[in-house]
Formats: sequence, C-alpha cells, structure tokens
Amino acid sequence: MRKGHQTWVFANRPVIAASAAVGGPFEAQGPLAEDFDTLHGDLTLGQESWEKAEKVLLEEACDKAMEKAEVQRDHVDFYLAGDLMNQTISGSFSARTLSIPYLGLFGACSTAMEGLALASLLVDSGNAGCVLTGTCSHNAAAEKQYRYPTEYGAQKPPTAQWTVTGAGAAVVVPNGKGLHVTSATIGRVVDMGLTDPFNMGAAMAPAAFATIERHFHERELPHDYYDLVVTGDLGRVGHSILSELLPSHNINIPLDRYVDCGRLIYGENPNVWAGGSGCGCVASVTYGHLLRQMREGEWRRILVVATGALLSPLTFQQGESIPCIAHAVSIES
Amino acid sequence: MRKGHQTWVFANRPVIAASAAVGGPFEAQGPLAEDFDTLHGDLTLGQESWEKAEKVLLEEACDKAMEKAEVQRDHVDFYLAGDLMNQTISGSFSARTLSIPYLGLFGACSTAMEGLALASLLVDSGNAGCVLTGTCSHNAAAEKQYRYPTEYGAQKPPTAQWTVTGAGAAVVVPNGKGLHVTSATIGRVVDMGLTDPFNMGAAMAPAAFATIERHFHERELPHDYYDLVVTGDLGRVGHSILSELLPSHNINIPLDRYVDCGRLIYGENPNVWAGGSGCGCVASVTYGHLLRQMREGEWRRILVVATGALLSPLTFQQGESIPCIAHAVSIES
Repeated sequence: MRKGHQTWVFANRPVIAASAAVGGPFEAQGPLAEDFDTLHGDLTLGQESWEKAEKVLLEEACDKAMEKAEVQRDHVDFYLAGDLMNQTISGSFSARTLSIPYLGLFGACSTAMEGLALASLLVDSGNAGCVLTGTCSHNAAAEKQYRYPTEYGAQKPPTAQWTVTGAGAAVVVPNGKGLHVTSATIGRVVDMGLTDPFNMGAAMAPAAFATIERHFHERELPHDYYDLVVTGDLGRVGHSILSELLPSHNINIPLDRYVDCGRLIYGENPNVWAGGSGCGCVASVTYGHLLRQMREGEWRRILVVATGALLSPLTFQQGESIPCIAHAVSIES
Repeated sequence: MRKGHQTWVFANRPVIAASAAVGGPFEAQGPLAEDFDTLHGDLTLGQESWEKAEKVLLEEACDKAMEKAEVQRDHVDFYLAGDLMNQTISGSFSARTLSIPYLGLFGACSTAMEGLALASLLVDSGNAGCVLTGTCSHNAAAEKQYRYPTEYGAQKPPTAQWTVTGAGAAVVVPNGKGLHVTSATIGRVVDMGLTDPFNMGAAMAPAAFATIERHFHERELPHDYYDLVVTGDLGRVGHSILSELLPSHNINIPLDRYVDCGRLIYGENPNVWAGGSGCGCVASVTYGHLLRQMREGEWRRILVVATGALLSPLTFQQGESIPCIAHAVSIES
C-alpha cells in the first residue's frame, strides 16, 4: 500500500529470512568484530587486485546469507546490488557469478537501503518470491578510485572518513521466521552547497534529516516510535550535525536512541578520523550487528537511514557541490 | 502479478502518459531526426563540459516528457534514472535539479528498460501514482571516460559502435490515455568470455537472446506475438548474430520484424562503424521514434530488449571478459 508520496508501507510485512556480513582485517579489530560472519586477515582476500577482492566480499556475503536462509541460488528470483566502483562492477560481476536475474542500483552508500526497500517492495507486491540484496566496499579500492592510492600516504583532515572493507547481504521472502520490513521512505537529492569531499558527514546530514522528517510525517508515527534510529554513514561530524538538526526542527527522536553506523563500526578509534563510510559500512553494520541485536530481542523496531554522497572525482574537479540522498527502511520484529 | 521467475506481468497495464527524446547535432543528421522533441546544434549545449551537457540532455528529456504528460514535478512520486558516467552523475545531478524522490539505477545501456520496468511495477502495484524514468549518454563524455578523448583521433575497428548523444524519458501513470506497459523480463548476466570492448554487439547478443527466450517461455506467447521486437543497442554485428541465434534455438520471431536501435538511429551511415550505442540510444529511439509509430497505429505490440555491457575500463585492463545483460519490456496499445 502506498502512503504519502515517498513512503511505501508494506502491508504483507516481508521477512528478512537471513542476513550476513563479511569484513576485512581492520574491521576485525573493531568493536563489532563478533557480528561478522566472516573476517579476512588479508586485505587482498587472495585476489589479484583490490577490485576483485571487493567483489569476493560481496559474493561471500551473498552466499552466506543464502546458506543461512537455506535457499539455493536457483530459488532466488532477483538479485539487487550496487557499490561504489566505477560502473558498479562489484554488483555486476557478482551477478555474473550468482547467475540470478539482476537489477543494478546506484545510490553510493545509500545503496544498501535502496536495495532492501526495492527487494521488500518486489516481495510485498507479489512480484517476487525470494530476493537477494547486497552491497560492499573496499578501503583500498575506494582510496585508489576516489582519492590517492594508499601508498602515497596523503594526509587527511579530521572530518574525513575511513571506507569500510566489508559487505552485507540479506534474503527477503514473503513469510516465515525472521524480522519484518514494514516500510521504506525513498529520499530526494539534497545539496546544501558543500563541496569538500573530505567532509561527507556534513554534506549528507541534511539529506538524512529530510528523509527522516518525511518518514515520520508520511507514516504519521510518534517521534519515539523506534527503539533505534540508525544513520549510515554520517560519522562523528554528521551524527553531531543531525543531532542538532532534528530537535531544532521539532523532530524529537530521543537522541540516546540515535546512532550512526560510521561511528559504531570502529568505536572511538581516532585513526579513522570521523568514522567509517562506504557501501559496506551500513550494510555490514545493519545486516551483521543490528539485526543480530534485533533477533536477540534488544530492539523491536529500528529505522535504518542509509545516506549517500552522489559525487564523483570528476564533479569535484569541475567545481560542483555534493548532491546527497538518504533512503530509510523500517525493520520490526 | 508474478508469472515465472524473471517476468512481471502488469495486470493493471500502467500507461505511458508521455515520452520525449532529445538529441545532439549528429543525431539531427540521422534518419530519425524528426522523432526527437529537441535537437541541439552544439555538442556542448552551452555547458562548460561534456558531462554537464549530458546532464542537460537528460533534464530536457524529463522536462519535455512531464510537459507533454501535463504533470508538474511535485506531482511525480519517483524518478528512476541512470547513465554511463562514473557514479551515474547524470542521473544523480538531474535528480538534484528535479527534486523528485530518486532511485539511481545502473545497467549500462540496459538502464532505459530497467527504469521502465521498475517504474511500471511501482505504478502497477499501487506504490506510485506517477513515475518519471529516463536515461542519457553523450558521445564526447563517453569517449573521454571509456576510451580516448576524441581529439586523439584514435582509430577503431568496424565492429565498434558510436555512442549516441541523446536522452529519452517517459512518464508512467496508472491509467488514462496512452500506450500500456504490459510486462517486463529482468535479465541474468551472461558472459560468453568475449573481451573486446570494440565489439560489444557480439558480447551482448547472447544476453539479449537469453532474455528473449525467457520472456516468450514465461509469458507463454507465440513467437510472432509482437509486431516488432527491438534490441538496443546491438548494432549491425550483434543484430546479425542474434538473427542467427534465435532461429537456431527455435525462437521463431519473424526476422523482418526484428530491428535494433543501434541500427535505426543512424541508418546505414558507415561513419558510425557497427551502429549506435549508449544509454541514450535505446532511450531516444524507443521514447521518440518507436512510441510515435505506436501512437500512429503502425505497431500495436512491441517488445523492447535493452542490452547492457557491464564492463569498466578497469575490468578490461585487468583482463576480465565482458558481463552483459538485457531487460525486456512489452508495450502495447
């Protein structure tokens, strides 16, 4: 059922039959290490390139999610994926391996929730019986493409974020045991004129705000409805900005129930500057850490607001500001 | 309603309220010139860069489609778009201009039909009242990103294709006057091991074949059901390969009713080698030329099979073969 202009309310409450998270060596040292299904000690994963390693992260997360959901590849109707690489090669090449009908997505770091929203809509509307969705990022692949190769040792300001080496995937089905996807709010692009690619948290916070505001308005929910509102991945800077934006616009989400995936994944480690980022950040934290907490009864209702900075190195070079977006998905037990 | 694993049959027959096509100076010299709503005499469109020009193509196609459908931006629920540029900046930056809730897609040249399929599904399932979808490409922007800047004058083999400077967009609504979207088949990635980025037609033909085969099988349609089966954009090489593949596997589509957008857009002009390509090719030919023919009664039923080569310059450099995909959408009057 449609409710409002931007929000889908899923009357049939599709079920996340299983989810999985895969991480790299740096993530293995973080506070959420135990929430990953697989952790790699080697950043290359035994592959010839960072990009091939990134693809393997996603494939492993998909395989693990299907294994836990006890579904075979040929019983999955659609695969929805995307990533940060040029031409979303991690999504496309993993779709070649999986051989499941494929819908490629791009929303930068918001892709994880774009995928879960569309997967849930396909199942809720009866247009799919089983959908796999996932996304990933790789620190070295992202540094090489977006900034400088890591070996250059370029310095960064404290507002910069650390791209997560990781992937997350989920299997969505019409019914059975598992957590329910109850609604999704699709974001508009918001661009406040910020141009600094080393301060994406500040650029993305207004997009997260806009989507959260629309979500509560269109669903007509009290602001304390969710046990947890999670953004991903604003980092410390964006989390702090959004924590001011919300109350100043009378969106009274209890701030002790508002967390950010970019802060959760590495804790207070100062070596990651303002926190984690990348498609793999919100995906691995949500599909690993948060859903484990929900399955154990710690939270009954969460709203995951995945944020994306839709710039490219070329738009930055051409003097453009950073268009940002956020998609929100509510998950309830 | 779901029918089979890969095919959506739209019980409520969503309506293409309007569509529009915009082209560049080279397209203006081609046989389909009269089917474009707007043709630009200058490849820059007055912009500072090829990339900004490409974005304007898409924005103009969207604005024209909304104008013809007599809908305002704030009555459009969702905008689904994508393109060939790194980080799909044409889609994202046009979404910033339009300020409509945005779902970014990537399927290389198949994006046009990925967008129309999802737009139709959103409307058919009652999750949207009005959806805008579009895609674009720009010859100089694509050459610069994927190959060499045009100024280098690099030679190409006769199997190469010419990226279309153009955009196409459509407005999909639940009912009213217009052509109906009746079904969509989402493709699997097919990779036959071809590695030559100057022969994408040959790489993509098997993906088109696979999707066409599934479409007829899952819809249980006779092979002569459609007045026209259109691929986009296999060009002369891929068109010729698919014309052999189909009958050799007993898919007996009448070959005089099988055409390719990459061949239609420039006719037999030898300067484009094997024909047109790019997201803007199938989009502008379908939303301009083909739908005009349908509105005038020339065709009652067509199947548009948009093909995409999901490579990147980096995957080519790393010795990878080319994963390909095709999505098919049936349009009926």
